[in-house]
Amino acid sequence: MTAIHNETLDHIFNHKTIRKFKPTAVTPDQLTALYHAAQQTPTSMFLQQFSIVRVTDETKRAQIREICGQDYVGAEGELLIFVVDLHRNAAIREQLGNDIGRLDKTDLFLQGVEDTTLAVQNTVTAAESMGLGTVILGSIQNDLAQMVKILALPSLTLPLLGLQVGVPDQKPQLKPRLPQQFVVFENTYPKAPTISELAPYDQVVTTYYDLRDSNRRIDSFTHQINGAKLARDKSPKLRHEIAQVIKQQGFAQDF
Amino acid sequence: MTAIHNETLDHIFNHKTIRKFKPTAVTPDQLTALYHAAQQTPTSMFLQQFSIVRVTDETKRAQIREICGQDYVGAEGELLIFVVDLHRNAAIREQLGNDIGRLDKTDLFLQGVEDTTLAVQNTVTAAESMGLGTVILGSIQNDLAQMVKILALPSLTLPLLGLQVGVPDQKPQLKPRLPQQFVVFENTYPKAPTISELAPYDQVVTTYYDLRDSNRRIDSFTHQINGAKLARDKSPKLRHEIAQVIKQQGFAQDF
Repeated sequence: MTAIHNETLDHIFNHKTIRKFKPTAVTPDQLTALYHAAQQTPTSMFLQQFSIVRVTDETKRAQIREICGQDYVGAEGELLIFVVDLHRNAAIREQLGNDIGRLDKTDLFLQGVEDTTLAVQNTVTAAESMGLGTVILGSIQNDLAQMVKILALPSLTLPLLGLQVGVPDQKPQLKPRLPQQFVVFENTYPKAPTISELAPYDQVVTTYYDLRDSNRRIDSFTHQINGAKLARDKSPKLRHEIAQVIKQQGFAQDF
Repeated sequence: MTAIHNETLDHIFNHKTIRKFKPTAVTPDQLTALYHAAQQTPTSMFLQQFSIVRVTDETKRAQIREICGQDYVGAEGELLIFVVDLHRNAAIREQLGNDIGRLDKTDLFLQGVEDTTLAVQNTVTAAESMGLGTVILGSIQNDLAQMVKILALPSLTLPLLGLQVGVPDQKPQLKPRLPQQFVVFENTYPKAPTISELAPYDQVVTTYYDLRDSNRRIDSFTHQINGAKLARDKSPKLRHEIAQVIKQQGFAQDF
């Protein structure tokens, strides 16, 4: 595939999402390494606008599992919630007698989302380098208002992504990505690929098995994109309230 | 600092942003590895909603440098623009006779931003593992409407972050992050730190030198946060138009 290999590249190239974990604890040293990896992530303008809430309380874990609708959430392993956090910097400015400045603007919200998401990916890579597995939980966005309540989050914070981390108890296959020519361009954006240009990739996707020990084939890529995942009437029930929660939390008041 | 080390963790722990590059080309094999790392990144719901535009055209590189206001942008090394891309999936649905579904909703926009940003971080880590240096360019957001024009971007795409990649020609010091207790919490969000609780960290920041060969000290963290970076009247000129461009590109119509 690629001519260059090293330990780090190989971890990245072989990333697989893990959705089943052993009942083996993530060790305190592993957790420390994960937090350190998150914190050393690049941060826009040195604003450091994210926080992590580690969820150990079983009631809260069950509540979050319910929101996500996935039985592995808050089951075995650690559940970390990555929070866009402009609250800390607002509090600093207010204590120093200042206003909150541009923290309520869309561009600062986007910066916070970027800081937070970059940190999630570094945490994933760090976990995999230690033999742990992860699944990023966009599903916490199914009910952001409830997530805010569960974690007692103040204004100018938003729970963005969860991360379940643990010792893998499954070996999924590498999931084939779109051919590079449809994703990497030079200087200008080309015409979108046609269905027939995507046919060979569709073929690859349908012959890939999600788990080696299963006989379940998956739908072709174009069929997935055309289907329920994106259908207007299939929105997870509170996903349409995301914009409202973002605004209620004090973000992007100029949007 | 941390008890666990391996090659990958050490790359992540020692990340430094590089803003000066040697006039040495990134090789085709290195580029292939970077693209592959980006593509193997976790992607929400397998939607694969980002693209990369590699900018090699000198005129376009100069235009982007002007937008960013940073002389290293599009100078030595590669300039990659990471684009939130829901256009490809919209085109698939339309070719199959369907509507664009929820692609114009805020939650799908956020998913695209997350996919794109996760891929940026994997590309950074991949680059550093090969001895290359990077700087993430949030500064392309200084004029997103112009970025859309330069790259001829269609609806449902948004240039989110740039990445300048090259052979490092400087050795900055590790930038000290906030103490972990102010960033990592358990079960609930605590009170924001007070200025006096932050004083030791402020001291660390002021005694850190950005570049080993410079005598330039930097401002304390709380002073930076209280200052021009976030001031209402100091917004880079077109940053306040970000919300408008996002909507014009067809995203987040429900926001």
